[in-house]
Amino acid sequence: MDTIKIRDIEVAYNRIKPYILNTPLIVNENINKLTKANVFFKLENLQYTGSFKLRGACNKILQLSENQKSRGLVAYSSGNHAQAVAYASNLFDIDCKIVMPDNAPKIKIENTKKFGAKIKFFDYKKESREKIAEQISKKEKRIIIKPYDDLEVIKGQGTAGKEIVEELKKLKIIPDVYLCCCGGGGLIAGTSSYIKSIYPKIKNFSVEPESFNDTQLSLKNNKIFYNHESSFSICDALLAPTPGKITFPINKKILSGGLSVSDEEVKNTIINLAENLKMVVEPGGAVAATALLNKKIEVRNKNVIVMISGGNIDYKFLSSFQKNLK
Amino acid sequence: MDTIKIRDIEVAYNRIKPYILNTPLIVNENINKLTKANVFFKLENLQYTGSFKLRGACNKILQLSENQKSRGLVAYSSGNHAQAVAYASNLFDIDCKIVMPDNAPKIKIENTKKFGAKIKFFDYKKESREKIAEQISKKEKRIIIKPYDDLEVIKGQGTAGKEIVEELKKLKIIPDVYLCCCGGGGLIAGTSSYIKSIYPKIKNFSVEPESFNDTQLSLKNNKIFYNHESSFSICDALLAPTPGKITFPINKKILSGGLSVSDEEVKNTIINLAENLKMVVEPGGAVAATALLNKKIEVRNKNVIVMISGGNIDYKFLSSFQKNLK
Repeated sequence: MDTIKIRDIEVAYNRIKPYILNTPLIVNENINKLTKANVFFKLENLQYTGSFKLRGACNKILQLSENQKSRGLVAYSSGNHAQAVAYASNLFDIDCKIVMPDNAPKIKIENTKKFGAKIKFFDYKKESREKIAEQISKKEKRIIIKPYDDLEVIKGQGTAGKEIVEELKKLKIIPDVYLCCCGGGGLIAGTSSYIKSIYPKIKNFSVEPESFNDTQLSLKNNKIFYNHESSFSICDALLAPTPGKITFPINKKILSGGLSVSDEEVKNTIINLAENLKMVVEPGGAVAATALLNKKIEVRNKNVIVMISGGNIDYKFLSSFQKNLK
Repeated sequence: MDTIKIRDIEVAYNRIKPYILNTPLIVNENINKLTKANVFFKLENLQYTGSFKLRGACNKILQLSENQKSRGLVAYSSGNHAQAVAYASNLFDIDCKIVMPDNAPKIKIENTKKFGAKIKFFDYKKESREKIAEQISKKEKRIIIKPYDDLEVIKGQGTAGKEIVEELKKLKIIPDVYLCCCGGGGLIAGTSSYIKSIYPKIKNFSVEPESFNDTQLSLKNNKIFYNHESSFSICDALLAPTPGKITFPINKKILSGGLSVSDEEVKNTIINLAENLKMVVEPGGAVAATALLNKKIEVRNKNVIVMISGGNIDYKFLSSFQKNLK
């Protein structure tokens, strides 16, 4: 199945609506001036748990049987999916274990714990998170909640697209371009599917860290690329090794191309968004805005949707960017 | 005239609507947990120019005659009103001069300049901003746009209250408490008037820095108090010397009391709001949230509206709070 239908996302939306925040879509005059475009920021950093991930996690978990729920859940994540699964498990009273890299941001580890999840740390340089989760699932009979390669998770993330369209309709705006971050590709697959169904002429672009640009390369060459094992980026939420088996066939159909940005550009964008948008945005959540602000694509006089996907940045990390200030 | 009518604010809203942002009213699960209340944050830090001040400035300026506009404007402000008047003057093509203290935050000075206003600095320790503005007005025949003691400015600020009520109606929420910052008292006078007309049982509280708690003292003792001339607070937007001649009679009728907070409490709140709400909030914009988080009033199980009035904080200032991190 290479397409997600509007109807699927609407069903997901009705299912998860009581548990998520309909996040704002906002305009900022300074950034419109800077870019000479009409930019609409979708603020998923304001979502409960600080990122969009709660949408997919809720949509998946709410469809489990009582038997499945009684067995408990396991998820692997550097942090945002972890927090979302932990929060939802707490909400629906399900036992939950999370496999996290030992270098995950402290704020993400602390929040995951706060929601009552057990955490199993692993050495991100030596071990595979998927394998550890599979072992736990097998041994403890827990249900795995995958971060992106699951249709129900993708449909859940797609609900952010439905909210964007509803706001744009109120404003009578037809969007020209949609910029969205891409790690495993679940958010962009779900949201782009919805948005492109309503506005078929829109151009959707994935945005990745330049050292984790597997989707950009895969789209360009029409075959699956892997990131180098030794790659590094500050965008901890976007470090998936390769496009998803389920997400990529969807993204191949609905994306117009892939963009990528450097860590330095992302740092400057985080400061810019704090100063102009008054928003705390994490590195992975800021890549789409980074592509916009660094003119990775021509947007002059266009209506552009920019996804701000998360805000779980350690405050200490934020202040370490001070050297980037002019 | 000691009351502002709903109708006045609705007329103002229709007048300024094309020029302002209908800012979001949002909920945050972490803060609800911390406070055991249902908290709704009105995000005027996302307003164009980074504070609510644009509402009042637009409402005033849009009612000037062509002759008045051709003479140019003058305003005095530590920064947020300055930016708003400069921005609106630029929008409506009016010449504009701003009287600013020489210790105003750099971001506010730079933005005011960016909007094309001329700036006249004064020594905040020695000179009176009002007197300088009056001299300029007299000499250059410019119209003074007052920061709060003007009914049209108060009605403009009140439009934020109308937006709050519209959102609460959608959510079917009856608010119990409204917490709002108070400098000269224009924002709280306008918004409280609107909100209390719709929800007569609501309790409205002003929140001030504890060394600038003139409204708290004036409300309590039913006579006008002045702040000490040597007082200091980091809340640069809230340093009016005494309640306004027009705002105070209104506030006396519609407020249930006054609260105050320390600068240290404000600093901690700014960090808390960055981490939990993902928002950049300036000190003056954070006092209402500070009263909430420091339990200056009992809010358990209540529906509480908290005004976030501005976000124009120097990034360097924000990072100087690092020592407050646990």
